[in-house]
Amino acid sequence: MRLSSFFLPTLKETPAEAQIVSHRLMLRAGMIKQTAAGIYAWLPLGLRVLRRIETIVREEHNRFGFQELLMPTIQSADLWRESGRYDGYGKEMLRIKDRHERDLLYGPTNEEMITDIFRTHVKSYRQLPLTLYHIQWKFRDEIRPRFGVMRGREFLMKDAYSFDVDYLDARATYNRFFVCYLSTFRRMGLTPIPVRAETGPIGGDLSHEFHILADTGESELFVDRRLLDLDLTGRAFADDDEIGAFVKEVTDIYAAADEMHRADQCPVPPDDLVTRRGIEVGHIFHFGAKYSQPMGARITDPEGHEREVQMGSYGIGVSRLVGGIIEASHDDAGIVWPGSVAPFQVGVINLKAGDAACDAAAGDFYAKLRAAGVETLYDDTDERAGAKFATMDLIGLPWQVTVGPRGVKAGTVEVKDRASGEREELSIDAALAKLTAA
Amino acid sequence: MRLSSFFLPTLKETPAEAQIVSHRLMLRAGMIKQTAAGIYAWLPLGLRVLRRIETIVREEHNRFGFQELLMPTIQSADLWRESGRYDGYGKEMLRIKDRHERDLLYGPTNEEMITDIFRTHVKSYRQLPLTLYHIQWKFRDEIRPRFGVMRGREFLMKDAYSFDVDYLDARATYNRFFVCYLSTFRRMGLTPIPVRAETGPIGGDLSHEFHILADTGESELFVDRRLLDLDLTGRAFADDDEIGAFVKEVTDIYAAADEMHRADQCPVPPDDLVTRRGIEVGHIFHFGAKYSQPMGARITDPEGHEREVQMGSYGIGVSRLVGGIIEASHDDAGIVWPGSVAPFQVGVINLKAGDAACDAAAGDFYAKLRAAGVETLYDDTDERAGAKFATMDLIGLPWQVTVGPRGVKAGTVEVKDRASGEREELSIDAALAKLTAA
Repeated sequence: MRLSSFFLPTLKETPAEAQIVSHRLMLRAGMIKQTAAGIYAWLPLGLRVLRRIETIVREEHNRFGFQELLMPTIQSADLWRESGRYDGYGKEMLRIKDRHERDLLYGPTNEEMITDIFRTHVKSYRQLPLTLYHIQWKFRDEIRPRFGVMRGREFLMKDAYSFDVDYLDARATYNRFFVCYLSTFRRMGLTPIPVRAETGPIGGDLSHEFHILADTGESELFVDRRLLDLDLTGRAFADDDEIGAFVKEVTDIYAAADEMHRADQCPVPPDDLVTRRGIEVGHIFHFGAKYSQPMGARITDPEGHEREVQMGSYGIGVSRLVGGIIEASHDDAGIVWPGSVAPFQVGVINLKAGDAACDAAAGDFYAKLRAAGVETLYDDTDERAGAKFATMDLIGLPWQVTVGPRGVKAGTVEVKDRASGEREELSIDAALAKLTAA
Repeated sequence: MRLSSFFLPTLKETPAEAQIVSHRLMLRAGMIKQTAAGIYAWLPLGLRVLRRIETIVREEHNRFGFQELLMPTIQSADLWRESGRYDGYGKEMLRIKDRHERDLLYGPTNEEMITDIFRTHVKSYRQLPLTLYHIQWKFRDEIRPRFGVMRGREFLMKDAYSFDVDYLDARATYNRFFVCYLSTFRRMGLTPIPVRAETGPIGGDLSHEFHILADTGESELFVDRRLLDLDLTGRAFADDDEIGAFVKEVTDIYAAADEMHRADQCPVPPDDLVTRRGIEVGHIFHFGAKYSQPMGARITDPEGHEREVQMGSYGIGVSRLVGGIIEASHDDAGIVWPGSVAPFQVGVINLKAGDAACDAAAGDFYAKLRAAGVETLYDDTDERAGAKFATMDLIGLPWQVTVGPRGVKAGTVEVKDRASGEREELSIDAALAKLTAA
């Protein structure tokens, strides 16, 4: 993409309304524009990141056999009356009346709707296990939306729902999500910390939040240091037993966020307890028959008995992750995208646009990267050099390549690693080889 | 994908509420489930088709340099008050009050919001031409939603908005959309017919609807037969002049839908006028300063004067197209997907699941197709043969491969072309070669 024709409205000033670094950087980098309180348009650069995160989530879910569908944003209130949640949900639910005065709502979550789909079509244990997920916009009418996409009102969420014949099967599904979430967040360059979460009146221990480490994070995490030393990814599991054993190994180690941590009851010796700041980006939860019971989602088990299907739900804040990744990965100059979610892999800077030799060399370099399938943003504008460097640092592409008059004469370009700041003067061929291999 | 674990709730009975064939077939093929009047969940098979259509639209738009962003579904009423449309829009607009009693609405279209984004960030002709599009859910509160996804209330639409410095540039952009739409619909296996449409008080001739031919279509088209003979696709254009000349050639030929056709004023001799049925799936429209004027979206032109930016909008009904393609391509047995939008390319039927030789041969065939990157649905269930054939015909994958006990002994499979119904007995290698080349 040529920057001269790319819609990238970066801001020089730091917007006054943005209180946290990810919000400031997303506005300054031209990733989003607020269109109403807590509601954002995703400009082309921001959308590219959002889509990459979405794709990683989708691929990791599909790998575990979870199936994608897409439920609508607008729901009938009737389903929520069946589950008993309509009256109690409170003001965060955006309630709507249509032209016939029927009660609708903008879905904040989809347990009721997926239970309805399930009970319509599934009757037998033979069709289980079944896990369905979707990636869809949700709305929660926060009283004071803030922090940009970290706590917006309209937000993109992946929510999955599992259906199993009994508790043991449901626990196996829960464990699959546990490892799916670890690999999903690791693929985004993040360090996920699973912490035990409230289970509410249902009880049991099958509820975990996933936080990612970020010094600017909103939550305080209390973690047995052994968890930080554990390799939470890269594992291949042969079967559910191996997954279960690994999840037990991880969850036997103490980790809690502030609202669950009780200093006087903590089993970890003070010397082994470390505190870190984190951002909650996912939550997995087994809730058994909470919805299948009131909504009559029953299946026939292998013995021919009817029973309520065992359910769980599993959420990831997709749009929230865009902000979360920036909180976890930035410096004073701007965003530092992990390669897997970067909007482009490489930024090519033409230091002297208008100079025939520079135009030819930079244009050729850009064309070769494109031909090799490397997503590249080519700054072909006539801005001054300092502004170009600042913009590239701000938008945080993993690699920057500078093509200038001196290098063109020598047949070299400068390649900068955004994360480390390291620069190398490389021949054009060596630079291409490095960037197409990365 | 193995059918035994794929969530594909096909129906044997034709649902009584479905009045048109695409609605009946989408319900029977387990593509959608109605969740409220005019609101649908897209089940896995339906979602796969929706995503393929979306991808074609996206690729064709990107090819022309149109840039994707994503605007939210919920809008503030204030923007619509600025343009003057809020009070007049009528009951099709879903109006909402949030917890602070602020007026919101579920966007039926996005002219106001995109104009606001534009005026915030673009000030100079140097940043033009600029065309932005998004693919997002919309809501129109139809008084009587019907015909399934063809006239639903929540629907997926691609809407694009162009910004140009003057009328001539705006016309060039309009023409680019004209050819973009032709190639988009042709790639979906459809025959698009552009017809002149109402321009309203703005006047001019830059408004066209795109209908696709379907015998069951809702609109009647009156077309000079020369248009049907014209090659509307496959052209490569060197520049805007070539595009403009081609658009003139096409639009000089008479074509009108019923609401614009006047038999007594038709310039085409009766013998040359043919009538066809069609379905409207797209609309392109130049509206000049209709929004930029009241909303103050002005740019500096090359002479240094401020002027209102010239705009156009360009819509495609993405979810509507799923129904439209079925209306255009089905038979008594079910859907006949064009390859480019098919949910899977191949369906493999194991005629005798449980038989070791059949399981091995069919499983191996399926694995080889997958390895070759061919999207395949493998019917590994223990349903009877007749039901398996009926399901495959119903869901309409382009190719069906039957692996049965007799063939397994002979080392052959039967390959059926869903569209023509032709069957061939082929060696396993020949069948693989044919299906991986297709």
